[in-house]
Amino acid sequence: MAEVWPWQAQVDSVVERIKAKGAQLRASNESTHSAETRAAWLKELLLLKHEYLQFTGEYFVSEGERKQRKRQRAQLLVDKLTPPLPPSAFPPWAERDFFRFEVVHSSRKPGSRARVGRIVTPHGVIDTPCFVPVGTNGALKGVTSDQALEAGVQLMFCNTYHLLVHPGPAVVEAAGGLHAFMAHPRTMPIITDSGGFQVFSLANACADEEGPELKSRRKRNQDDAGTGTVLALSEQGVHFRSYLDNREIFLSPESTVDAQKRFGSDIIIPLDELPPYHVTPERLKESVYLSHRWMARSLRRHLQDQRKQAMYGVVHGGTDHALRRESIEYLASLPFDGFAIGGSLGQDRAEMVELLTFLLPLVPSHKPNHLLGIADEESVVASIPLGVDTFDSCNPTRLARHGTLMTRAGQLRITSLKYADDHGPIDPQTPTISQSRAYLHHLYKQHEPIYATLASLHNIRYMHALTKRLRDGILKDEI
Amino acid sequence: MAEVWPWQAQVDSVVERIKAKGAQLRASNESTHSAETRAAWLKELLLLKHEYLQFTGEYFVSEGERKQRKRQRAQLLVDKLTPPLPPSAFPPWAERDFFRFEVVHSSRKPGSRARVGRIVTPHGVIDTPCFVPVGTNGALKGVTSDQALEAGVQLMFCNTYHLLVHPGPAVVEAAGGLHAFMAHPRTMPIITDSGGFQVFSLANACADEEGPELKSRRKRNQDDAGTGTVLALSEQGVHFRSYLDNREIFLSPESTVDAQKRFGSDIIIPLDELPPYHVTPERLKESVYLSHRWMARSLRRHLQDQRKQAMYGVVHGGTDHALRRESIEYLASLPFDGFAIGGSLGQDRAEMVELLTFLLPLVPSHKPNHLLGIADEESVVASIPLGVDTFDSCNPTRLARHGTLMTRAGQLRITSLKYADDHGPIDPQTPTISQSRAYLHHLYKQHEPIYATLASLHNIRYMHALTKRLRDGILKDEI
Repeated sequence: MAEVWPWQAQVDSVVERIKAKGAQLRASNESTHSAETRAAWLKELLLLKHEYLQFTGEYFVSEGERKQRKRQRAQLLVDKLTPPLPPSAFPPWAERDFFRFEVVHSSRKPGSRARVGRIVTPHGVIDTPCFVPVGTNGALKGVTSDQALEAGVQLMFCNTYHLLVHPGPAVVEAAGGLHAFMAHPRTMPIITDSGGFQVFSLANACADEEGPELKSRRKRNQDDAGTGTVLALSEQGVHFRSYLDNREIFLSPESTVDAQKRFGSDIIIPLDELPPYHVTPERLKESVYLSHRWMARSLRRHLQDQRKQAMYGVVHGGTDHALRRESIEYLASLPFDGFAIGGSLGQDRAEMVELLTFLLPLVPSHKPNHLLGIADEESVVASIPLGVDTFDSCNPTRLARHGTLMTRAGQLRITSLKYADDHGPIDPQTPTISQSRAYLHHLYKQHEPIYATLASLHNIRYMHALTKRLRDGILKDEI
Repeated sequence: MAEVWPWQAQVDSVVERIKAKGAQLRASNESTHSAETRAAWLKELLLLKHEYLQFTGEYFVSEGERKQRKRQRAQLLVDKLTPPLPPSAFPPWAERDFFRFEVVHSSRKPGSRARVGRIVTPHGVIDTPCFVPVGTNGALKGVTSDQALEAGVQLMFCNTYHLLVHPGPAVVEAAGGLHAFMAHPRTMPIITDSGGFQVFSLANACADEEGPELKSRRKRNQDDAGTGTVLALSEQGVHFRSYLDNREIFLSPESTVDAQKRFGSDIIIPLDELPPYHVTPERLKESVYLSHRWMARSLRRHLQDQRKQAMYGVVHGGTDHALRRESIEYLASLPFDGFAIGGSLGQDRAEMVELLTFLLPLVPSHKPNHLLGIADEESVVASIPLGVDTFDSCNPTRLARHGTLMTRAGQLRITSLKYADDHGPIDPQTPTISQSRAYLHHLYKQHEPIYATLASLHNIRYMHALTKRLRDGILKDEI
């Protein structure tokens, strides 16, 4: 497919049209054409150059401009609602032999959209619905790959932003990709994000801090983002300063794909913009359009060198139903392999459920979907009946590190003195780790590093037991 | 054995003699006996009360004194060189069915005392020579029991001082002992120390800080001891303040055994005193005598309720050959199951080797011996040919945490930038972990918790590979 699609011819065609329009403009003057006509031609030229950027990720620079080392970024964007590349600019989606989604069973319970599925990737199978723990830097916090596999982890989420900053894509590529770099002993698929979430959540941190967004998202911003800075945001991409060493890094729809190619991720996320939570409807719409243009560029870059990687489009539009519909309709028209649900999902769980209830029926059901950054227990239980397949979050492992263990009787604060002499299992109803409450209490109080390991393993295993129960419930049409 | 030995009759006999001597004194006066005679009787009485303390761990309090709630601690110790309980006060040593030491092979290399052995304990077999990692709080730093077992750990060293402070012996006992508390999935023997080392290394910290003692010991003091304080040291034991919660804790030869009984340790260490490094020969001798009296009391307590636990005597005497000889000769005359080598071993490795060369031929060779707190690679390589069987140290795991990995080509500072893109194994000559230098460098730089886990596992496996090589060398009479 990638071989036969006329990727270069598309670019050549735009270049021809730019040259023709430029020649037309240069050949005209006040006496030959009206000012209105020439202004319209100029706008057409800018739109063509904009199209060139959509196809290539680069600003169009003519021969003459190249000689004069000119740039014209500022003039480029004629309209913040400029549409992204149309579906016709892409080859149609076709079944991938290296990435398949099979719906094993769709619940027949009235009103339920829940389904049990299997995502088959080059690095292993993912049984959905599936909890996806986050290993920001290419490592789960306190849990080795061996332990993660033993705990039943089937998909790991890594953050491109952090991996770009350290160790950088060249090191990961030289290792043979993330799987080899992390020395996964057997197989475990990896999904990486675009880096956009961290770059923008950082820039928006002030605006967001007081925002009533779901707690898990807010905390994620604060925990993960360090102290980097967005230096410049343009149609081409975003320049930011590394939180680690102050280095300037350029993140574009193409560069994030290039990085994720070098990481060898099984599932790639295209670049999107994360608008602040408190945003006007106009600004939100502009953001969705920018995200669409960026994601189309990422997809184009991806499809030209697909390797055995899949790409999910990220549905945006905040809590605006019309925008959400527009977003999923556009993304569904492109050859993405699945869909991630991003952006703001509202002020609380009720709003999230309301939004997902509206949104998920619009998401193509023959492709897998992923709920980005939300995996607290209540949200998982609430969203799986709505049809969510996979969901990542640092929440279960961060809760664990900070002393909160998940049990079927509710969250348990292992820091409490009442567990000092409680030799029972963490959750009598869920077999997870063999260590007792008293031992974990002791390890926590003594700041022993293996506290975080064992507590995280407990919560990860608890989440897997939870999704296993939910899968069983779906298979019985009870959910 | 414990059943037939007249433990109580020994106490009864002392009590009778105390009463008789007291009656004799009370019945006399200036007119019936000379002042010299009565002074001699008083000294005899004090010695008898001292003997009572040796047998019971308690001060003798007469009926009259009990009514008046009197104590007479200050008067008790008539002489700091009072001898400990004689061998005749103990049952003779006999083979234990629950704890056996088998010498598999003694090197026939001229001048070598190296041997390959097996210690069979109720919780598993220890192949000697064996490196023993330290899990101060009942947990190796960053390494779970499962991982330790996979890494080949056969004996774990835990610190009674820390476990007394938290979680306390009652919690560990209620869990079913340390093995159950830690939820060892299979079997791994545990050796615990007496707590004395930490209590005194703390008190001596100022004196020690400038001392030229072996680095590994100095660091251990600083790292482990927290900020506790010795409140009072007496013949009976030592009162100290918990570094954790300022609680006053009493550590006596009997109480440490009671605690280690409750921990269910496979190998118990009796209470000893750790003199400061800079100490006069007189003070050192007094310290050795006190340690002997204390260890005899610990042994007595232990043998009255042996369970399936073994006890090693701790050889003292610093760098004084005569004292070391006196120490091992006394300890060898008691029914200990093995011998630990404690106290100062000199200013550097050469002095340690010189001392061990003198000392080890005096240690009964049919019982296992343990070198306390020294397991840096060079010391291990130097001391195994001298006949050392087991040796504990936090050194390999602490080195790992701080960025130093052990390889056959020397220590490797994983923090160095030159490893950022080095995708080779940590030590090409020693299979340990599957992760690369580049990955560990990345994890270290990003402060990922699993850095400590993987680095510690590497150094532990490296130490096991080292002792395996040395065992093979002994079997071939090359070492």
